[in-house]
Amino acid sequence: MKKIAFFACLALVAMSSLGQQALGQRPRVKSPVVNDDGTVTFNFYDPTAQQVSVTGDFEEIRWQNLPMTKQENGVWTVTTKPLNPELYSYSLSVDGQRFIDPSNSYVNRDISTLSNIFIVTKSADDKGHLYQVNDVPHGTLARVWYDSPTLGQQRRMTVYLPAAYDGKKRFPVMYLLHGHGGDETAWGDLGRASQIMDNLIAEGKAVPMIVVMPNGNPTCNAAPGWWHEGMYTPDGNAFNQRGAKASMEESFMDIVKFVDSHYKTIRKRSARAVTGLSMGGGHTFGISRLYPETFDYYGLQSAAARMRRDDPKVEEQMARLFNSKPKLFWIAIGKEDFLMQGNTDLRNYLDSHNYPYEYYENDGGHIWRNWRIYLSLFAQKIFKD
Amino acid sequence: MKKIAFFACLALVAMSSLGQQALGQRPRVKSPVVNDDGTVTFNFYDPTAQQVSVTGDFEEIRWQNLPMTKQENGVWTVTTKPLNPELYSYSLSVDGQRFIDPSNSYVNRDISTLSNIFIVTKSADDKGHLYQVNDVPHGTLARVWYDSPTLGQQRRMTVYLPAAYDGKKRFPVMYLLHGHGGDETAWGDLGRASQIMDNLIAEGKAVPMIVVMPNGNPTCNAAPGWWHEGMYTPDGNAFNQRGAKASMEESFMDIVKFVDSHYKTIRKRSARAVTGLSMGGGHTFGISRLYPETFDYYGLQSAAARMRRDDPKVEEQMARLFNSKPKLFWIAIGKEDFLMQGNTDLRNYLDSHNYPYEYYENDGGHIWRNWRIYLSLFAQKIFKD
Repeated sequence: MKKIAFFACLALVAMSSLGQQALGQRPRVKSPVVNDDGTVTFNFYDPTAQQVSVTGDFEEIRWQNLPMTKQENGVWTVTTKPLNPELYSYSLSVDGQRFIDPSNSYVNRDISTLSNIFIVTKSADDKGHLYQVNDVPHGTLARVWYDSPTLGQQRRMTVYLPAAYDGKKRFPVMYLLHGHGGDETAWGDLGRASQIMDNLIAEGKAVPMIVVMPNGNPTCNAAPGWWHEGMYTPDGNAFNQRGAKASMEESFMDIVKFVDSHYKTIRKRSARAVTGLSMGGGHTFGISRLYPETFDYYGLQSAAARMRRDDPKVEEQMARLFNSKPKLFWIAIGKEDFLMQGNTDLRNYLDSHNYPYEYYENDGGHIWRNWRIYLSLFAQKIFKD
Repeated sequence: MKKIAFFACLALVAMSSLGQQALGQRPRVKSPVVNDDGTVTFNFYDPTAQQVSVTGDFEEIRWQNLPMTKQENGVWTVTTKPLNPELYSYSLSVDGQRFIDPSNSYVNRDISTLSNIFIVTKSADDKGHLYQVNDVPHGTLARVWYDSPTLGQQRRMTVYLPAAYDGKKRFPVMYLLHGHGGDETAWGDLGRASQIMDNLIAEGKAVPMIVVMPNGNPTCNAAPGWWHEGMYTPDGNAFNQRGAKASMEESFMDIVKFVDSHYKTIRKRSARAVTGLSMGGGHTFGISRLYPETFDYYGLQSAAARMRRDDPKVEEQMARLFNSKPKLFWIAIGKEDFLMQGNTDLRNYLDSHNYPYEYYENDGGHIWRNWRIYLSLFAQKIFKD
């Protein structure tokens, strides 16, 4: 008992060092609470607020406000309708201002905005289960600095090594590219890449593989706060490519060379895949044309990929790409995606040349919810033959 | 120009997917702004709030409220006095409720509470510079799962590999242990361990070394959200040791064995150090007595280490430890630390037996600000002879 009291005291000190000392008689608030029936209850204590609501990406509201009701104890509360299995993002609106839910320490950063997250799951074969951490063998996740001679920089990437990686056996590699505004942390955080890969591999749905998530912004070395630009506030302009020595596509073999020389990879075309979302889908398209002998699987997710029929160089590259008979050229996009037209143009071009590809279309738009699905599907399609 | 417009459009879509679409005419707010004179300006937009203040760990207020003033455009603002170089934590109080600053996406989690952070630095030899990311070679940081037969678990640790790590050369290892309420992410996030090590190594002040930051809670496999308990809200009770198969100290050689078999380590006593804060200082003390032949350097930081003179086994262990002549037994604590008495007792015991140790005392209490200093000092003392 003495030991417990001693550590309880330590915990109190730790909490007061956070400035939480003057909480007074406020009720203990838990938020969010994912209920057994799939509804989710949000709670927030603020006796003086006039209007509090939740906004999030769940079906019921789709980023509209879901008003919360104040109870006598000063706690605002609301319970959603039953939600489909998914990883959800939300924030609170308190008298018109957007805040993170102070009771939920689980957050994702998208560009410079934090949002809270939670997961709803109902069964072992739904998306929530696929995105959560289950009691399965876990791969390791490393933030690795590599040398890019082409860009003249040390640069940071994220590397997922499957649980079976032991430094002896060799594994295939999926290169997984983020979109505009993202960085080498995006697929791991917003994309739940390590959870998805852990779970798919544990279930035998994907083969154990290395996943490499580089930073696709050639004018940044690393994610905000992780290079010498310091703790700046990233916005769209922080990620433009003006002044870059080379494009992401042109510098891409620096990454492949580093990975092949530092990890136990299977160093052949049939053991290399590349896929990316949005800008990263555009990078994937560019990489497919520049290095058709290097990769055997391509996945364009909501890709910023435009087929320029007026550019004879591109036509030539496309001919070379498809002559090399890649095992998979996969295009995935949501019906509401604002990049649909460019993808339709690309598909029309491929059709007109009888270039074989696979196409996957689902609901929704240019959102992480879709990219997690696309990663899950693509990972199950590769390295199996 | 077309490409820029295209990506600007992508950025807008990405931002609206975060639910930021309805911002209306609100002014652009930047916060915090670290000014050239070392003052820091906080800004927060909320035209309807009645009272807004900043609370943080800077000298001027020490977690008291620093009131902000509302300007005509609805932006509340305040500028601090000049701050000493340091990494600071803060949050906002809006009409009595604690919130994260919505303009600052840089946060640290301590147990279950998020706080914003910023860094003040004035010159290349101050603490702010030591804690920030500079343009120096960077080590890699990995979240690694290892097997602990003693605890019967797969468990997660953080491993820092110095920039010079190339898979060929061997390096010494510092084991760096967190306190109660912490986990394998604490030293990297709150402790700025990778920045401190990158900078000390780049400046030639510390020798290149591997730093291993395990999870010291034997009833948790990993940090909250990273094991199958899901996204629970951690509190003091989440970290108690009831029901554990063994203590952290008893299971510690599982970690050393894993590290020595998976990394290019120098596998001898003179190339192993162990140090920890608070509970981790207690672990360090326990480890020093259990495995005196394994480590040559010990650092007790604000240690929860009590010398039990009434326990003959401990006396025996202490004799064995100091007979083995460790190169360093270092005790560091702040004048205001609530664990001072236990540390004084321990020093009295060591003095009474003529056991040699080094002692470092500074201002302040049981806080991360001190632990970052202790890490910086300890890292410069080890593996040099």
